[in-house]
Parts: sequence; C-alpha cells; structure tokens
Amino acid sequence: MKSLGIGLIGTGYMGKCHALAWNAVKPVFGDVERPRLVHLAETTVELAKSRAAEFGFEKATADWKALIADPQVDVVSVTTPNQFHAEMAIAALEAGKHVWCEKPMAPSYTDAERMLKAARASGKIAVLGYNYIQNPIMRHIKTLIGEGAIGTVNHIRVEMDEDFMADPEAFLYWKSELSAGYGAIDDFAVHPLSLLWYLFGHVEAVIADMVKPYADRPLRDGGRRPVENHDAASVLMRLGGGISAVLMANRAAWGRKGRIALQIFGSKGSITFDQERLNEFELYQADSRGTEQGYRKILAAPAHQPYDRFIPAPGHGLGFNDLKIIECRELIRAISGAPSSLVTFEDGLRIEKSVHAMAQSFHERRWIEIV
Amino acid sequence: MKSLGIGLIGTGYMGKCHALAWNAVKPVFGDVERPRLVHLAETTVELAKSRAAEFGFEKATADWKALIADPQVDVVSVTTPNQFHAEMAIAALEAGKHVWCEKPMAPSYTDAERMLKAARASGKIAVLGYNYIQNPIMRHIKTLIGEGAIGTVNHIRVEMDEDFMADPEAFLYWKSELSAGYGAIDDFAVHPLSLLWYLFGHVEAVIADMVKPYADRPLRDGGRRPVENHDAASVLMRLGGGISAVLMANRAAWGRKGRIALQIFGSKGSITFDQERLNEFELYQADSRGTEQGYRKILAAPAHQPYDRFIPAPGHGLGFNDLKIIECRELIRAISGAPSSLVTFEDGLRIEKSVHAMAQSFHERRWIEIV
Amino acid sequence: MKSLGIGLIGTGYMGKCHALAWNAVKPVFGDVERPRLVHLAETTVELAKSRAAEFGFEKATADWKALIADPQVDVVSVTTPNQFHAEMAIAALEAGKHVWCEKPMAPSYTDAERMLKAARASGKIAVLGYNYIQNPIMRHIKTLIGEGAIGTVNHIRVEMDEDFMADPEAFLYWKSELSAGYGAIDDFAVHPLSLLWYLFGHVEAVIADMVKPYADRPLRDGGRRPVENHDAASVLMRLGGGISAVLMANRAAWGRKGRIALQIFGSKGSITFDQERLNEFELYQADSRGTEQGYRKILAAPAHQPYDRFIPAPGHGLGFNDLKIIECRELIRAISGAPSSLVTFEDGLRIEKSVHAMAQSFHERRWIEIV
Amino acid sequence: MKSLGIGLIGTGYMGKCHALAWNAVKPVFGDVERPRLVHLAETTVELAKSRAAEFGFEKATADWKALIADPQVDVVSVTTPNQFHAEMAIAALEAGKHVWCEKPMAPSYTDAERMLKAARASGKIAVLGYNYIQNPIMRHIKTLIGEGAIGTVNHIRVEMDEDFMADPEAFLYWKSELSAGYGAIDDFAVHPLSLLWYLFGHVEAVIADMVKPYADRPLRDGGRRPVENHDAASVLMRLGGGISAVLMANRAAWGRKGRIALQIFGSKGSITFDQERLNEFELYQADSRGTEQGYRKILAAPAHQPYDRFIPAPGHGLGFNDLKIIECRELIRAISGAPSSLVTFEDGLRIEKSVHAMAQSFHERRWIEIV
Repeated sequence: MKSLGIGLIGTGYMGKCHALAWNAVKPVFGDVERPRLVHLAETTVELAKSRAAEFGFEKATADWKALIADPQVDVVSVTTPNQFHAEMAIAALEAGKHVWCEKPMAPSYTDAERMLKAARASGKIAVLGYNYIQNPIMRHIKTLIGEGAIGTVNHIRVEMDEDFMADPEAFLYWKSELSAGYGAIDDFAVHPLSLLWYLFGHVEAVIADMVKPYADRPLRDGGRRPVENHDAASVLMRLGGGISAVLMANRAAWGRKGRIALQIFGSKGSITFDQERLNEFELYQADSRGTEQGYRKILAAPAHQPYDRFIPAPGHGLGFNDLKIIECRELIRAISGAPSSLVTFEDGLRIEKSVHAMAQSFHERRWIEIV
Repeated sequence: MKSLGIGLIGTGYMGKCHALAWNAVKPVFGDVERPRLVHLAETTVELAKSRAAEFGFEKATADWKALIADPQVDVVSVTTPNQFHAEMAIAALEAGKHVWCEKPMAPSYTDAERMLKAARASGKIAVLGYNYIQNPIMRHIKTLIGEGAIGTVNHIRVEMDEDFMADPEAFLYWKSELSAGYGAIDDFAVHPLSLLWYLFGHVEAVIADMVKPYADRPLRDGGRRPVENHDAASVLMRLGGGISAVLMANRAAWGRKGRIALQIFGSKGSITFDQERLNEFELYQADSRGTEQGYRKILAAPAHQPYDRFIPAPGHGLGFNDLKIIECRELIRAISGAPSSLVTFEDGLRIEKSVHAMAQSFHERRWIEIV
Repeated sequence: MKSLGIGLIGTGYMGKCHALAWNAVKPVFGDVERPRLVHLAETTVELAKSRAAEFGFEKATADWKALIADPQVDVVSVTTPNQFHAEMAIAALEAGKHVWCEKPMAPSYTDAERMLKAARASGKIAVLGYNYIQNPIMRHIKTLIGEGAIGTVNHIRVEMDEDFMADPEAFLYWKSELSAGYGAIDDFAVHPLSLLWYLFGHVEAVIADMVKPYADRPLRDGGRRPVENHDAASVLMRLGGGISAVLMANRAAWGRKGRIALQIFGSKGSITFDQERLNEFELYQADSRGTEQGYRKILAAPAHQPYDRFIPAPGHGLGFNDLKIIECRELIRAISGAPSSLVTFEDGLRIEKSVHAMAQSFHERRWIEIV
Repeated sequence: MKSLGIGLIGTGYMGKCHALAWNAVKPVFGDVERPRLVHLAETTVELAKSRAAEFGFEKATADWKALIADPQVDVVSVTTPNQFHAEMAIAALEAGKHVWCEKPMAPSYTDAERMLKAARASGKIAVLGYNYIQNPIMRHIKTLIGEGAIGTVNHIRVEMDEDFMADPEAFLYWKSELSAGYGAIDDFAVHPLSLLWYLFGHVEAVIADMVKPYADRPLRDGGRRPVENHDAASVLMRLGGGISAVLMANRAAWGRKGRIALQIFGSKGSITFDQERLNEFELYQADSRGTEQGYRKILAAPAHQPYDRFIPAPGHGLGFNDLKIIECRELIRAISGAPSSLVTFEDGLRIEKSVHAMAQSFHERRWIEIV
C-alpha cells in the first residue's frame, strides 16, 4: 500500500496527540507505510508554521479548506473544537479524504447525522478518536469476555470522573454554556460509552439524573452568571441480553484526574479496570478453592498485543499517547482494507443518540428506549 | 446506673455477634456497668442450653415468650430471621423491655409501622443493629463533613456488593423467594442506606432498576424453580440539600465479599471508604499545590475515638465484631439517658420506607418522592 | 478439663488485650472451658480494684507475689514492662503456674535463659505473646507453603515499621536508653522474627546495620541528651535450606503505623502480606497463561480457620485484639495437652539469641553464625 | 543549534526505544532541532535495511565502524549487548562523536575506566541510558527532598525485582554465565543505584549477600549445567550524610514484572514510589493533625514537568518509552551546552565501582568502603 498523505487541522491537546501518533506509527509497528506529513492548519499562519515545524509537516496554512483541497492529502485529522467537526469532516469527505475526527461528532444530533451521511456517500473511512478502546488491556478484556472467562455478563458499572470543573470559584467559560452541550454526558461520558459499545454493543434504554453542583460561577470581569449545563450525571441503563448498567460521570469530582472505572460482573467471575492505572486490570474467577479466591491484579505484558510492539518486557507500562498510536495504526489498516477495531461514524452516531436520550430522560423524568 | 439484665433471642450470625458484644462491652469501655447475661432463647432447649453455656447466659429456654416475661431481663436482643422481628420486638416492648433488634425491622412496611408504634407506646429504647455506622472511621467522616473539610457535599455514590448469590447453580433457598423481600434492596442495601442516613439524613426521591442475574435456580431434589426476587439493584436518588446519589447493591457480584464502597464529593474535596478495608479511608482536599494533590490514605488511629478503647496504637485494626461492641455501648448509654448515636425504630422505619419506594419506582418505572 | 483460674499482672496496652481475650475466648470458641478471672495485680490497690471491676476479675492486689501465691490461680498473664518479665515469670513457674508472658522474654539473654530453665524445671506451659502468628491468614500462608503452592522458598524480605519514634523533637524517654535494649531489633523486630520462625524455622547467620536517625533528643526540663540505642536496623540473614532473608525494622519511619510487610519468593510463586491490612494477603502462582498472570488479593474468609469462629461471612474482617483471642485458645489447648501453635520459652529464647547476634554483628562489622 | 545527525547501533529492546525517542523528541518538545536519522547498524545488511526503513534512518550497514566513520553522524546510540559497549563507545568518541550508551558501561571495570578516559580525551558528551531518573515524578521527588518536604533523609530502601529468571526449568543462557557479570547486581541493580545517585549521591560503603535460587538449569540439548552467577542480592549500604540504605535485587522474583520500589524516610516525612505504577508516588508529611495523617497518593500531572509536554491533563499517564524521549531531549540539551540531568560516564563509572565493591564484600564477607 502506498504511503498516506496526512493533513492535520488543530494542534491543541488532541491535535498534538494525533501528530505524535502519525510520527510514531511506523517506527512502533513497522508493518505499515510511513505516512507523509503533508499539511497542517491552525488559526493563524504563524502558529501553523510553528507547529508544522515541530510536528514535521511540510506545509502550513490558516485556511483549512486549502488543506482539504490539497491533492497530496489522503487523510484528514480533525481535532478542532466540537462545533467545527461537522463542517470540516463533511468537507473532507466530500473532497474524497478519509477522516479521523476527535469525539464527539457534533453538539447537535442533526449535524452528526449529516456527518454519517457524508461518510456513507464518500465511501471513505470515517472514524472517531476514541482511544481508550485501543488499550491492549481493554482488548484483552474483550477477549476474556468472548472466551467466557467470567461467564455471561449481567451487570456493569462505569464511572468517569475528573476534577477540572470542581472548583466552584473557577471562572465560567464556554464549557458551562448550553451551546457546548449537556455537560458531563456529552463532554466526556461518551468515553465510557465507547467502552461499553466496544465490549457489549449499544445501549437500549436509559434514565438519567443530571445535576449542577454549582448554580453559578464568577466571571472574569466581575459578577456571576448561571451555569447552564450539568457537570455530573448518573444513568441507569439496559444493554442487549438483559444486561443492566450504571453510568456515572462527573467533571466536578475533586481528586479524580482521569478515572474511568469499569466493573463487569458475570455468572462466573468479574473484571475491574481503572484508566488512572491504565497498565493493569483485575480478574476474579470463581473456580479456585475457598481459601484462595481473590481478584488477580494483572499488569500489561507483551502477551497483551500490541503492547509487544512498544516494549518486549512486561510491567513497564504504556502511556496515554501510546493508545493513540495504536488507533492510528488501526486507521491505516482500515484504509488498506484490513480488519480493524475503530469507532466508525456509524457507531459514533449511535453513541451520541444514547447521549441525547439521556438528556431527554432527565427532562421528562422517565425511561427512554433507544431504537 | 444499675447493671442491665440481658435476654438474647437467636444465636446465629448476628446472635453470636450480640453475645460477644454483651461480654466485651464492660472490659473494653470500662465506663458502663457490666451487663448481666440472664436469659437466652433458641429453637430447642438443648441448643439454648449449649449456647447459654458458651455465651455465659444464666438461663436457657426454647420459649422466647418466657424470656420476655422474665423480670430479670431489661433488654432483649432480637436476632432471629426477619419475619419474626415484629412479633418479638413488639412483645418485648409491651413487656416493658428495651429492644435491640437486628435490621431490617420487618419484611412488610405495616409490620414495621406496628413496631414503631409499640416503641413509642412503651417509652423504652428501641434500636436497630446497624453496626457499620459505629466504625470510628465513619464517625470521623461525619465529623470531617460537619467541619466543612470537603466543603458542601453535592454527590454521593455507594455500592454494596457480596457474592453469596453469585453462583447460578447454587440451590434456590428462601432468600430468593418473594416472601423474604425484594432481594438486594431490603436484604442488604439497608446497610448503605443507614450510612447515608447517618451522614446526610433521609432520601427524598428515588428511581430504581432491579435485575435477576439468574431467572431460575436448581432445587435440591431436582428440577429448577424461578427466582422470585432481584439480586441486584441500582438506584438514582436525591437527598436533602440537592445532593444527588447513586446506590448500587448486588448480592451476586463475584469477587466482592463485604464491599460497602462510599464516595462522597464536595465543593472542596472528597472522601472514599470501603468496608472491605474497614480500618482506612481516603481524604482529598483541594488546598494543596498542584504538584502534591492527591488522596490521603488514613489508617484508623486512637484519635478516631473510640478506637483508643480497643488499642492504644494506630494502624493495628479493629474487626467487624468490634463495631458491635461500640453499638452495644451506645445502647447502654441511650438506656441511661446519655446522648448516643444509634438507628432508632423511627429512623429505621424511614430507611425501610425508602426501600419500598425503590420497589415501587421499579415497578412503575418512574421517580417516587418519599414524603 | 476443668476451668482455669487466671491471674493478670499489668493492665496497660497488652494487659488489657489479655483481659479482653480471657473474657472472649469461651463465647468465641465454645470448645474450651470458660476461664475464671481470679486475680489482678497493678501498681496500686486502687488501680488494681478499678481494673478488676472493668475486666471482671474477682480479686485485686498491689502485690503481684500474692497473686502468684493464690491457689485459685492456674495461669499467670505477665504483661508488665520488659525488665520485670524474668522475675515474675520465674516466680509464677516456681509456684506451679502456667505462664503467658508478653514478648520479649527479657532485656538480658542471661535472664531469658533463666526463664527457660525455670519453665523446663516446672513442667508447666510457658509461652510468649506473639499474636501475629495467630492470624488465620498467617496460618493459611504456612499451609500454602507446606503444600508447595509457591514451590521451594528461596528468598524472604520482612519489614516492620512504625513511627512512634519518628519525631526528632519528641522528648527522650526510657525507650531510647541502653537499659531498655538495643532499640529496633529487640523492641519490635522480634515480631517479624516470630513470623519467620513460624513459617521457616530459626535464623542461622546474620549481619546487621543499625542507625540512630537522631543523635540526641530534648529533655522535658530543658537541654538535650544523646539517644543511646538504635531506632532503625537492617539485617541480612540466612535461614535453613539456603534461604536468604532481609529483615528491616524502623520505629522512626514516618507514615508507617503498624506495618509488618512480608514478601516470600519461591520456585513456583510468591506471597505478600502487610499487617496494616491484616485481613488480606497476595498470592502469585506461576501456572496461569501469560495474559492472566498476576497477584491474587485474597480476603480473610471462614475457610481460613478459625476466622469462622468469629464471623461466618468472608471479607468482614478480624481486628488486632481477635488475634489475641486465638492465642488465648491455643494456650488453653496447650494446657489441656492438645496440639497447639505457640511460641514457647524455648522458641522465644532462640529468637532473642538471634537478636543478640544481630547486635554483635553490627558492633563487630561481620557475619555472626547462630549455633 | 544545528540539527544533529544520529547513528544507531543495535535495534533490539533498547535500540528500538532509542529510535522511538529520536523520532519523537522534536514533536514532543518543540524546543530542540529535529534530529536527522542518518545511519543505522545491525548484524546483517538485510536486518539493518529493514530496521532503517521502519525507524526512518537514511543509511543502513552491517559495519558499525562505517557508521562511526560517517561524517554526517554527530551522535551515536550504542544499544548492543554489554560486552560491545566499550569498543564501540570508545571508537565513536575517538571519532569525535557524542555517545549515548545503554547501561551498564561494560562487564569489566577496566573497560569502563577506558570508556571514561576516552570520553574525557574527546571532550564530547558521553552519557548512559538510565531512563528511570527521567520520570517527571522522580524529578519532583528530588525537588521535594531538596525543599525539605520530608526533612533530613536518614534511611532508604530500594527493591528491584523481575521474574524473567524465576522459572527453575527455563533453559540456561548467557545471562547465567560469569562472563555476563555477577548477576542481579550488575544486570539490573544498577537501575536503583542510578536513582539513589540521582537523589542522594554515591554509595560510600557496602556489604552484600548474593544467592543462587537455582544451582543449575537445563540445557536445550539435554542435561543440566551449573548457574554461574547470582540471580538475587541484598545489600546493606551507607551513603553520605550518615544515610543508611538497603538495596534488594532479584531477577527470579515470581510475580514482579518491573518493580523498582523506593522508600525514603526523613525527619519530617517519607516518600514511596514503585516503577510498576510509574505515574504515581506517595508522600507522607508529619504536619497534619492525628486524625488525618496518611500517605497522599499523587498522580503524575502537568505540574510535574515535562509531563506537560506530553499531555496537558493530569492522571492520564506517561509510558516507559516516554522516559526515553525525555532522556533524549536532555542529551540534546547537553550537547548544546544547556544544563541537563543525565548519567555521564563519570557518574556511571562510580555506580559500577559500587557494584564491584558489592561483589567483593560478598566474597570477602565484610564491609567494603568505596573510596
């Protein structure tokens, strides 16, 4: 397969993460062509040039449409704020590019639907950045469940908590406005939803409670303004096969920094995982004698592929950015027609549909079935 | 105050626990009168005599009414199966005895109401065995919250999980029958509810989901029969002051042995606790600089009173039975008119009311306000 | 077997612990005769009377020799400061009493030898209070090792750390004087040595390093005085069968409250334990496939006997004082001629011999063989 | 500063790690020139070409001397087996190249001395790959100690354990031969020694015990042969300022995968760290009130620089390979004359001197002072 030409729009948190992945995917995996880093777009030419130099891109522009029009570009990484995703991803797809867009698709469901429509029309690969499913440990958990290691799964709990909105005296900014979305459920509960989808498929029914820990926040230039969306949410859910689940998300949870805590209970055992310790998980199997029953803490190891592509020794640890490198390689495989494990626009739309159902269930105070 | 005469009905799991507490309360605390262990009732005279000899009771009977009629008895410990609580507790109260009854009050709300009515009419002390609130660490958590150590509490999660119903091929027994109650929510979710009550007051609104991990179970003499109640439940809740909470209870949770995991989030910090490690808790306070923020793991110590009455050195650890000894001393204090910290029949009824509301919310698929 | 008459000398930290055990041993175990609490000795009659009332002893005295002379007393608990152990234990043995003496035997090896000689001459049971070996988990670890669960053991590390001497500005008191002993190695390293003895037998060779974290300490009435003994020690050791071990003890270890951390490595697995979490241990066995290798965290359970005598459910937790109740029952069994698991004066003397060898090895800066 | 031309000799475990670092250092840090990946040497031309393509090197050779002679090469990464380090590093230095050589310097002290001599004569930067000191958390621990956060340090324990030699029936290979070195102490105890050096300076006196868990091992073609060196070692040490330390290293420690556990005790607190959870450490400070004393678990965060160059959010986690990227940037800084934090050949020789002293102390069964 020929080398892919890469365009990158946005160089913030996830933009840099994409850039690191595009640089590292060949040295780490070997089995793909080294991508050509062709074009980088930022809000100003100066910034674009500076970042292009850092990240190794050939061309720099303040006009993302020029990047999309560039015939050297085969794949576009879209890492701009959420409200720009739809316009950029659709334009890229219409220009015949593959798209790797950061989650979520778009604040509005209609826009997200338009994105999927464009993806289908293009025939190109269109996937979302949901890197937590790429953790070799998460893959192995999926394998274990598939093998029946914990029997038939019947109950799941997942918590996603950080504390970047925990300080009540932090200034109000766009994340607290309704235009940015519902709050916890779309801002980051989509991550645990991607894990549930990856392991068990889609959510079928929900009822949510959503809360505002702080009614208002100070403004930089004095005074206070109401917080418009909800920093915390708790959701009862039903998945296929009669599995019950609880999703809890709180971006005002003092002390939690990057917690995505998963508990999976089955008829023969259980599994736990926490993203704050992303290189380990716990497995309980009901088969040992009563004196030695317990959770086994398992460290990431070469046998949890593709950990072995990074480090040949167990227990040494991957980092957050390494998960993006794995996602990048999956994307290259998908483009080449090989089997891959990614959240497509189709999957992503269904994830976002469940988010909208949660908001509806909260406002209507009733269970919502997701059809 | 004069020495109290004790009657004990039932000598199973909690009956023995009461007996150990009545034996130890004086040597541990010193500041109470040594109770006189007067009368013990069991299902047969032989068993009663044998247990009376073990536990140090003077008299033994197969007729619990004789025990209640015994003028030497001032306090009756009721530790029989739940369906007997109401009759025994009411009889004891009507006979002018103080009552220490194991939780829950009764399977039916009507019976529980009758118990409270009898308690009020008697003017005697009538309390329930909810020993987890007696943990010196739980008391200190209450103190910390009262001091504002984590600011205004806005969100709580509590999980109670064990695995004694986790094996799908375990024989069906009375715990799976409707006559025994709803399942997880009344069988043991009342424990975490007692913690919530102790720390934050009563629940005001609920919506629950309840599940049967296994539709049926084998019978000892062949064949299978449907499981009638729900081994797992998840509940969204609202408490006073706008606090949102999630309660999760699962008695079919492989790997969990005595988990009661509490997470409390406030405007200035957070607290976590897990009963499986009952001698420690974690405290996060938002006041440290960015390089040293983290949860502090705090081991039980003499400064967490009354730990000091058991052991003068920190980090050595209390056991489950020690919590009952503390509860026993609180009861003696209550009888003597001193301030005490206990779950009275009044508090207990309100806890059970919330359980019934959970069941209703599940069947009607809607939020229930508890008035 | 007839009921034993008990005498208790000393009612401090361990004295109370003995008293609680004598009160609880019958209700907990059932299978022993209830001891008669006959006589209690303290430094003044007032204190003795007060404690006798609390702990349930019939008689009280300020004259411990009167207690020993009491024909109603069959067993004497010696829980006074270390320098009194030899005189009291020998007197009790010579008066034909069984002796349960807190560790260590005596500050001087000669006195300890005299104690053993008296025990042998008396034909009575003479044992030391080393309660950590009574933990049901420790017993199960011994069983596992015996079964070959971790193969042939080849390397051990044990750390005992507390922080009661960690504050450099705490006033100097008797524990820092040479008359009290060497410091860390005899003050509390005897505890981990009792575990090593229990699991693997006696130490054969040692070389120690000992340190004074603080050269001097303030006096209550002004000025400072040199610290005379060593608050921290580290020891290389060889046990039988070519096992190498490292013993580390530090009573000036800020943050450690009751740590006795054990790591045992064998040819097929390993085991870890920490007394600060006395209700769990970790087991690693090399037999699982590469993707599921890990330490299993095992919670104390009824199957780890005699945990079941305290609580019929797993994961609920024993406390420090419960270990003494188990030791008490072992003592009663020993007196009745039944097999038991205890540190006799003979075993204790050998443990203390190794402590003296450590001090010698430090002063002579060379390995010392213990013959 | 102009872009550096890079030569890489060896592409195994650490060779790939170097290659990843050379690729990523510019995109991650931005503040350095992007290195030119010029020349790669492997044992065959085919392998060299294949790896050069993967890692992005321009030229490939089976003749490492050609690489060293290449005028386009400014820096040589030496990642071959230990016995080749001296020859290659010295040749590179003599050719006027900077050298980044994996630890240890060489199996023989004489060779290591020759390496240092060559480094001094060349005036070039000559450093060793000791990446664990590059962890942002390790840097912050150094800062905390320097600030007096735990007072004056008086005692340290460090354990390094893996289990790649734990299986007694694994075939004997070169690591068990004397020609490969002493075993645990030089094979990997140099890592914890690098941490001690980084935080506290050099070791001044040692006495070691070394053991062979397995006397012999099977050969691939039948029979068994004696193991020649020692898989486990324990060392008592003294550092400057009267600090006592214990070093334990075991490459036959079942269950340990990448453990480097550090405990540092001071007059005002203590710090713990374990490489198996490289994104967290624990801090205990003695200043809180008795009810809230405890170890604070601190997750890696942007405030622990240069974590922020990888990820702008706390708690997301760096990986093992990221530490090498930081080391790579330190090297580039050193070459440009900027302050840097690295293990120079000078420091490395002193570390290896202490290793040889350990072996001597074991054979002579006495303390060895290192002058």
